[in-house]
Formats: sequence, structure tokens, C-alpha cells
Amino acid sequence: MDAAPTPRIWTAALIVIGDEILSGRTQDKNVAQIASWLNVQGIRLKEVRVIADDMDAIAEAVNQLRARNDYLFTTGGIGPTHDDITVDAIAQALGVEVVIHPKARAILERYYETRGGINEGRLRMARVPDGSELIENRMSGAPGIRIANLYLMAGVPHITAGMLDALTGTLEGGLPLLSATLGCWVAESEVAALLGDTERAHGGCQIGSYPFFREGRVGANFVVRSTDQAQLDACVAALVSALEDEGRVVTAGGI
Amino acid sequence: MDAAPTPRIWTAALIVIGDEILSGRTQDKNVAQIASWLNVQGIRLKEVRVIADDMDAIAEAVNQLRARNDYLFTTGGIGPTHDDITVDAIAQALGVEVVIHPKARAILERYYETRGGINEGRLRMARVPDGSELIENRMSGAPGIRIANLYLMAGVPHITAGMLDALTGTLEGGLPLLSATLGCWVAESEVAALLGDTERAHGGCQIGSYPFFREGRVGANFVVRSTDQAQLDACVAALVSALEDEGRVVTAGGI
Repeated sequence: MDAAPTPRIWTAALIVIGDEILSGRTQDKNVAQIASWLNVQGIRLKEVRVIADDMDAIAEAVNQLRARNDYLFTTGGIGPTHDDITVDAIAQALGVEVVIHPKARAILERYYETRGGINEGRLRMARVPDGSELIENRMSGAPGIRIANLYLMAGVPHITAGMLDALTGTLEGGLPLLSATLGCWVAESEVAALLGDTERAHGGCQIGSYPFFREGRVGANFVVRSTDQAQLDACVAALVSALEDEGRVVTAGGI
Repeated sequence: MDAAPTPRIWTAALIVIGDEILSGRTQDKNVAQIASWLNVQGIRLKEVRVIADDMDAIAEAVNQLRARNDYLFTTGGIGPTHDDITVDAIAQALGVEVVIHPKARAILERYYETRGGINEGRLRMARVPDGSELIENRMSGAPGIRIANLYLMAGVPHITAGMLDALTGTLEGGLPLLSATLGCWVAESEVAALLGDTERAHGGCQIGSYPFFREGRVGANFVVRSTDQAQLDACVAALVSALEDEGRVVTAGGI
């Protein structure tokens, strides 16, 4: 039997732009929602950076991460106020001008027609790096922005959710990463050797161990990941057997 | 009057190590808690990276970030299982050996005396980069690790909370960043110019604008930040006046 060709893995990185996350004031929700969405598109989130509202820091991160990933997402900093500098920073990183996108301007003029009219701040949200396309915003006026392999999304999570929805199915990806979770009321340190042995015996699978402390007891969830359903099933079956052979009670789906 | 010398700003970076955050499975809670704790110590969190359980990726991030910050924290990957590779990756980044820390071994032997005894997996948690000190873990057995300006913390948030508590007051910092929040039921785009003008008129202060959509209405919180209480108070007073002059109702403390 010939070995199957290794499937290409598509990767993305995410830059979360915003002092409010770094100050601890705001709990980020975009990492988890973008990670989950990417996975369904068959794209692996490889790295996230959270950086301040700082032109040079944004430009540095953009240039590092766009070069080594298929896609680069950003969240935050595309609103109407003086601290919204993502568009300028990305234009600087790409070496292009900032221009007014005529369609974005038309969208904003229509959106604000019944909301007090367009003004200088609102018009800022029509500014894009030259060469950009728009990403539909179904929740509020200002669109997201795509240029090359960069996707500039809103910072407010429900607006980003709408933009992700508009992008669903439009990005080329590979095989989605499949996963199965097993839960056990056991200290992970009691079964550490067993987990490592099982992973080594099943190429193409990773086993993650996530301990917790609940109801006064320690437990752990073991997450098996693979892009191949048959390999995943075999690894899960082997792990269940190994745990049960040690007298552990295994809960499919996790605890 | 002579200008006061610019106070030194102490900075930290944080590396969150873990496939479970990048897969979207787990919502990170360590960024917000470490950011808030650092701020009380007078240390500014400048950058966060979330990276996979991958030796080279961890070593690259460690070497980039430890060089340009006073302190570098990591969370995750210091447990007993095969996917816990933080100690090895950091030893590689620093070019030192991994050794068993005798005090960590003694702590673990004592902790597990009544919990099934020490084993190979549990002993892994006594491994440290050569030259490390321990950070007390008040919640479970395995200690955190300090080496040079690196602080290796647990991934489980309540264990990290205990380690931060043990470190409180031990890191040199500068002036804490003070902040005050004003809330307004207004679209931030209506007051964007006013916010920018007020920030420009008050050196040493930043104004962040954080829009929200609640109870069917749009609003925004404006966060003024400064290390100087008098500058902060003056900026807040000016912002309240400017908003009230436009007929806005301002809620101190935010909405």
C-alpha cells in the first residue's frame, strides 16, 4: 500500500489589537470564536498576539505573521475614534496609501442617514489600505476589510461574529481538525505515562491533557485530535482500553 | 519650574502556551488576571502571545520577548504529562540544562505522600531549567519556576492566581497606571472629534473608547489612563465638560 500524501495544512494567525485587553479591563472573546470558526473552515490557528494601540507594534506583528501563515486576522481598532489606528498601521506595514473606499463611504452614508448623518469620525470607517475589498458587516454600518491575506475585523465580538458569518466558505482550507474528548476523575499525574505511550503508538494523533478541580475532586479531560477519522477512532479506543485496564471510569465527551 | 523627570516604565510580556486555547476549546482567563495583577505592581503588560505546544515556537517567542521586557511570564505546560514541554523549551531558549530541583522534588514527595506516592509523571514537575528558583504553589503540589526575568506559571487559572499572590510585592515596578471610566449613551462616532481633541490637550493621558450595544441602545465607555493623578483628574474633568456641553449625560464609573 502506498502511503497517502501528507495533506497540506492551512494556517492562520490572529492579532488582537487593543489596550483594553492588555490592561485587564476587558476579557477577550474573539480568540475562542475565531479559533472555532477557523477550525470549521479547515484552517489551523497557529499563533495569537495581543498588542497595544501602537503603530509600530502593529506593523511589526503584521509583517512577521502574514509572511508565515496563509491568513492573518486582526480584531479591533477599525472604529471611528482617535485610538482606532489599525488601518493606518496596516497600510504602513504593507507600504500602501490609506484611501477612502467609495463603497464603504456609500454604506456608511446610507447607514447614518437616519442616525444623525455622516461626520468626520464616521467617515474614518471608510478609510482602507489601498487595494482592499470590504467584508460585509450585518450588525452595524462599518464594514471589515480584506487586503491580500489580511482580514481586518471589528473588536466588538458580536460584530466580528457577523463578519465571520459573511466569510464562511470563502477561504480555502484543508482537512478540519477532528477531536474527541474523554473525561476521567483522576489526577493527570497518575496516568501521564499511559497518555504519552498511547500518543506515541498512534501517529497522526495528538492527546492533550486538561486537568481540573471541581466538586472537591481532581479530574482531567483528554482531548484526542487528528485530521483522520479512522486514526482518531483507533486512538480513542486504545486510550479508553488503557484507562479501563487501570480501573478508571471513562466518560465519553468529557466531564 | 523644572520638568519632572519622566518616570521609568516597567514592562512585561506574557506567553500563553497551549493548544487548547488555539483550538477554541478553552477560554483563556490568565491574560486578564495577570494584566490586572501586573498593573497593581506598577508593571505594564505590553504584549501577549498565545502559541502551540511546540518547542521551537516557544523558544522563539521567549527569546524575542525576554529581551525587550523587564519581565516575561508564561502560563501552561508545566504539568506532569507528555504535552507539558515548557521547561524543556525554555531551557533550550536559554541554552541551559534541565535539572531536578531538590526542593521541588521534596515538595512533590511530601505532597503526594498521601495521594498515591511519587511516580515518573509527577517527578517531571520537579524538572527546571538549571539556575531556577521556585515560586510557591499554595493550591496544589507543583511549584512555579523563576529563572532570570522569566516566571513560569501554571495553566489552570486558580493555581496561577495562588502563584501571583505568592509573588505580590516581590517584583520591582514603577508608578501604577491609574484609570477612570465615564459612560455615555452615545454612538462613539458622534463624539470622536471631541475625544481626540481632549486627549491631545492633556499630555500624559490616553483616552480609550469602548462602544457597546445593550438594551437596544448604543453607548460607549471612555477610559482615561495616566500615571499621574492630577493629570488624570484634569483630563476627566475636561472630558465631562466637553460631553455635557454637547448635552450628553455622563455616568461616572462607566455604564
